[in-house]
Amino acid sequence: MKIKELGLDDVRSVDWNEDENFVQLIDQRLIPFDFKINNYTSVVDLCDAIKTMVVRGAPAIGSTAAYGVALAIKEIEKEDNCNKKEKLDEKMEMILATRPTAVDLANFVFKTYTTAIETNYSFEDTLLKARSLTDEMVEECKTIGDRGLEIINDGDAILTHCNAGPLATVDYGTALAPIIQAHRKGKGVKVYVDETRPRLQGAKITAWELEQEGIDHEIIADSVAAYLMSKNKINKVILGADRCLKDGTISNKIGTYSIAVNAKYHNIPFYSSFPWSTIDHDSNSAEEFEIELRSEDEVKSFVHKEGKILIANPNSKAFNPAFDITPPKLISGYITAKGVLTTEELVQKIKEK
Amino acid sequence: MKIKELGLDDVRSVDWNEDENFVQLIDQRLIPFDFKINNYTSVVDLCDAIKTMVVRGAPAIGSTAAYGVALAIKEIEKEDNCNKKEKLDEKMEMILATRPTAVDLANFVFKTYTTAIETNYSFEDTLLKARSLTDEMVEECKTIGDRGLEIINDGDAILTHCNAGPLATVDYGTALAPIIQAHRKGKGVKVYVDETRPRLQGAKITAWELEQEGIDHEIIADSVAAYLMSKNKINKVILGADRCLKDGTISNKIGTYSIAVNAKYHNIPFYSSFPWSTIDHDSNSAEEFEIELRSEDEVKSFVHKEGKILIANPNSKAFNPAFDITPPKLISGYITAKGVLTTEELVQKIKEK
Repeated sequence: MKIKELGLDDVRSVDWNEDENFVQLIDQRLIPFDFKINNYTSVVDLCDAIKTMVVRGAPAIGSTAAYGVALAIKEIEKEDNCNKKEKLDEKMEMILATRPTAVDLANFVFKTYTTAIETNYSFEDTLLKARSLTDEMVEECKTIGDRGLEIINDGDAILTHCNAGPLATVDYGTALAPIIQAHRKGKGVKVYVDETRPRLQGAKITAWELEQEGIDHEIIADSVAAYLMSKNKINKVILGADRCLKDGTISNKIGTYSIAVNAKYHNIPFYSSFPWSTIDHDSNSAEEFEIELRSEDEVKSFVHKEGKILIANPNSKAFNPAFDITPPKLISGYITAKGVLTTEELVQKIKEK
Repeated sequence: MKIKELGLDDVRSVDWNEDENFVQLIDQRLIPFDFKINNYTSVVDLCDAIKTMVVRGAPAIGSTAAYGVALAIKEIEKEDNCNKKEKLDEKMEMILATRPTAVDLANFVFKTYTTAIETNYSFEDTLLKARSLTDEMVEECKTIGDRGLEIINDGDAILTHCNAGPLATVDYGTALAPIIQAHRKGKGVKVYVDETRPRLQGAKITAWELEQEGIDHEIIADSVAAYLMSKNKINKVILGADRCLKDGTISNKIGTYSIAVNAKYHNIPFYSSFPWSTIDHDSNSAEEFEIELRSEDEVKSFVHKEGKILIANPNSKAFNPAFDITPPKLISGYITAKGVLTTEELVQKIKEK
């Protein structure tokens, strides 16, 4: 990704420094107010970075964890006469415990760990595995962007929600990938960015990412999107997905469903963009989704560096679901590395696997 | 209205103190974090209170201004040998200039002023006029509540947006009036309160008012409403209107239209509640609405006592329309003092006038 003010043209949110063997993370906690790349030379510090949300976004966390296994091998190399298997298992457990529910993290860690075991704890091979897993994912995002290009026209005004950009996926992003690729290829696009209450990932992170790429955009309160649709100011919706069922039902950040209903009402195409790993091959119906209920505090307060400010009636309760569910009948297409698919095509390809 | 923690059962947001002849205003700037009633003994101070938003809501501002004319007469009485007409005109201009675009304010001031002139600057008669204008309006809101009762059933879960409660209308409110009356008559209702970005009038004021009445409620981010509708957790929408055209089109706080589209999609009745003065007898079509664009700052920052905190990417622009427009085809009924009307009935009654 580009970092405009630093004049950087090709930065990843997660990377391995070849010269000095450490993990580099863009500190996402500081975005959009500050930009800093942190270096991590020990597994303990890297685990702390995952726990404290220096890195966020399932794929970016996965990549960080994979590099963490390489870092673990490096640490083990320095110790004399240790039981390598025991030591590695210990460090792997530590990495897995940072975000116990993150699927990509577990997946990436196990693959890298397996390579480490199979190559008799070879640092070079383990690092190569971590890097290739990361590269594959970045490549998939780039392909999502390239395939998604077909639905973006010069002059499009696109609505997006929450954040599914390069920071979260190491590079390119999912929902933002086609937009970034279209812009880089000279298509003039305008993006309306839902601020995405309560955590404001759109106003903070997506808007910052679009600024870095120099893409024309405006932040709006979430309730403004429907009004813009009625005024023909939005002609496309592209957003991500946290999970996609076998029938094409998606769960994504709260607010997605409201946009989908409004898009349908205004005959505006609605696309969800995601890597293939987002597909949940086990769940059968939307009834199985458990919607995470988060703290009232996120709605009732605004958290900032020095503390939090109450922004609602103190004695009122708040209801704060993290996600909602959008059925396939409201989805015009799925932007994936296998192409922009209809629900029928998506379901078929899932079955093929 | 009730003020729970002070044990007050019947307070108006704007009132005249008969014993000592001053205007009392609930300081709405402090709600929901503090409660204070301010006393105003001079026209200058009262004008300052209107300007600095101690009082908000068109009807409440109208009532304050009318009492302001009575206060003006009281001041003139104390001056010797003055040209009463000149003095009163001066003070009236000062009151009118506080909020030049407020229709109720101008309307209330002219009616009270006319009484003052016709009664040869009688303080008693002018005060009587200001009080009767206020009483009529409060009575209309109470009637809206009583007539609106017919659409509220025991066990209803009602969504409301922004604020149209007792503080804004001296007492009872418009959208909240039927809810308050239903609750007082023992119907069990639950209210979902949209926080109403960007200014958070729902989270701050509506939630506070519902707490005072002891009505069960929860605050939600604006984008949650559609999700709750899909889960059958909301079975009615009641909100206000800032303006209603002759054909039943309403303009109201941004976000109203999105709710209306979602209510239609989910077959949930959508009601707009307002006093008859909200009807604009001059505008013919929604095309004539000019939507006020407000400062980017409201979206990009949270304002609090000590200043403001940036909550969005600093270099991004924000688009911040204050209102949106909802056509009659999305409106199930209009809750007015003349009854709960269909669009046809509303249009007919507007013509009759």
